[in-house]
Amino acid sequence: MTSWDLDLDGATPVTPDALTRLTAALEADLQETNRAIVARMESPVALIPQLAAHLVAAGGKRLRPLLTLASARLCGYRGDRHVQLAACVEFIHTATLLHDDVVDESILRRGHASANAVFGNKASVLVGDFLFARAFQLMVADGSLEVLRILSSAAATIAEGEVLQLTTQNDVATTEQRYFDVIRGKTAALFAAACEVGGVIADRPAAECAALARFGMDLGMAFQLVDDALDYSADVSELGKTVGDDFREGKLTYPVLIAIADGDAAETEFWNRSIGEGEQSDSDLATALALIDRHDAINRTVKRAQGFTETAIEALSIFPPSDLRDTMQDVASYTTARRF
Amino acid sequence: MTSWDLDLDGATPVTPDALTRLTAALEADLQETNRAIVARMESPVALIPQLAAHLVAAGGKRLRPLLTLASARLCGYRGDRHVQLAACVEFIHTATLLHDDVVDESILRRGHASANAVFGNKASVLVGDFLFARAFQLMVADGSLEVLRILSSAAATIAEGEVLQLTTQNDVATTEQRYFDVIRGKTAALFAAACEVGGVIADRPAAECAALARFGMDLGMAFQLVDDALDYSADVSELGKTVGDDFREGKLTYPVLIAIADGDAAETEFWNRSIGEGEQSDSDLATALALIDRHDAINRTVKRAQGFTETAIEALSIFPPSDLRDTMQDVASYTTARRF
Repeated sequence: MTSWDLDLDGATPVTPDALTRLTAALEADLQETNRAIVARMESPVALIPQLAAHLVAAGGKRLRPLLTLASARLCGYRGDRHVQLAACVEFIHTATLLHDDVVDESILRRGHASANAVFGNKASVLVGDFLFARAFQLMVADGSLEVLRILSSAAATIAEGEVLQLTTQNDVATTEQRYFDVIRGKTAALFAAACEVGGVIADRPAAECAALARFGMDLGMAFQLVDDALDYSADVSELGKTVGDDFREGKLTYPVLIAIADGDAAETEFWNRSIGEGEQSDSDLATALALIDRHDAINRTVKRAQGFTETAIEALSIFPPSDLRDTMQDVASYTTARRF
Repeated sequence: MTSWDLDLDGATPVTPDALTRLTAALEADLQETNRAIVARMESPVALIPQLAAHLVAAGGKRLRPLLTLASARLCGYRGDRHVQLAACVEFIHTATLLHDDVVDESILRRGHASANAVFGNKASVLVGDFLFARAFQLMVADGSLEVLRILSSAAATIAEGEVLQLTTQNDVATTEQRYFDVIRGKTAALFAAACEVGGVIADRPAAECAALARFGMDLGMAFQLVDDALDYSADVSELGKTVGDDFREGKLTYPVLIAIADGDAAETEFWNRSIGEGEQSDSDLATALALIDRHDAINRTVKRAQGFTETAIEALSIFPPSDLRDTMQDVASYTTARRF
């Protein structure tokens, strides 16, 4: 239990098992998607399925493909295109993870050794490229230019967000606006696209597709804000990654932006040295955690996430009430209470 | 002048300026393509056009986009889709280069410092991802699912070829077949796709599109064989890369496969140590060059390339004779005489 879990006054109702319920509601679709993922990772080049299997074995919640499946079903879709497109979405996400881990030099991913730690950076870059290309092959086989437009645009936006994040690394003058641009690109854009394509294949009106995109976008923003909070608060055994990664990498995430903005002269000096200049000693992470705690930055980050959660929930009000709609909205609430 | 230039008995006629003539014949189209490339590299994230401009400034022959332009014109195409698709092809190629240089840890590219040496590996990985995504956005804007199919399939094949190359690295038991699989994937597949899309947008019959794909494929095979020969023979000031890169990286290219196959026991020991185990001393490159020379491996590699050149030239015989067809065929001949 992390401290901020106990201090969510004014929070939207917390339904800790919403993601489990959504997964259960879409179990058959999800199993089809998992089969499609395994089948489409195949290649005569043995290292590709080997490395890909390492990622599949590492698990993950399949949150993004679930959003595609849920959105399609919410729109009354009855075919099987959503399964292939959910696999596409997961491939784009996995390719991004592989390249992220190379860029971040991460050694853990979801509690397991990251692919680059096991197979090397080179294989991670190239298998990421393969999965990305394979995702486009799957979309082409689906045959919808509108789906291709949405997902190729998301892919470009993801890369822009990642490059922007690189640009802001170690830059203690990073603005809140710039931070939001980064997470919109690197995370929220794919959540939005994952949801939107569900509406598109169901041939729903533009307003409903836009509502799904809004739901995904704001859910993604909340998700990344909480992720950035967890990096300064989660136990490695719970989150499957090490605490303080963002600090060590000099990433200007929301909790740090708050602590910098509200810090006194001595604190400013600390951040300038440890993040700005990247000169860190062993005790610096503890100091950073103490300063973040002093300015209540974890709770304030989660509160900011709750704002996005609320607009995400509101976006789905265009759809008639249903168990599925309620569960999707609960997943949004759960995002700000999660430790996954 | 490298030695094998003087020893091409039985070679197809050498026309050293064929690429210059093709470039001149397509000058207006190529300038449009260059404008499209610069325009579509734009992004609000400043590092993206900065890094991209570094590659544009480094020049390059624009060989792959030229193939798209030439193929379209050979098919009598009169619109402007070929320009955007030529830019696509160059983006896919550039993304591959960026990721290659990260994988190879190259410090030179076309005689200039490589992007990863100047901007770092992280930026190279991510800007490569951006260019790849942007290429798909351009294809989607073009609107042909057939073009999307050809180029997404080529992109997957390129990645497979690159991963296969990684798998064969330092493997002295690599077969000739395996080597050809690598270069077909990493190089020839994009040449083939670049040509084929020219026929597709001109609405030509399947046989003509297949002939263009064959021309591109075999031209690409010849091109890579010669590239691999040049790595053991070219002067850095001519080729814009350092001699012996492949040797130092333990790549099993065709000249080395020949030298290994024909080597005596002492030579086998040398290759096992220097390439198999990657244990190299300062004098080893000179030894490798001497062994390659001893087995005439450069000339034999170029001869092999000439076989592909001939089938490439033959493939275009389906088209009526024209200046453009002749020039494309001359480019194929030139490939085995080139020092670019």
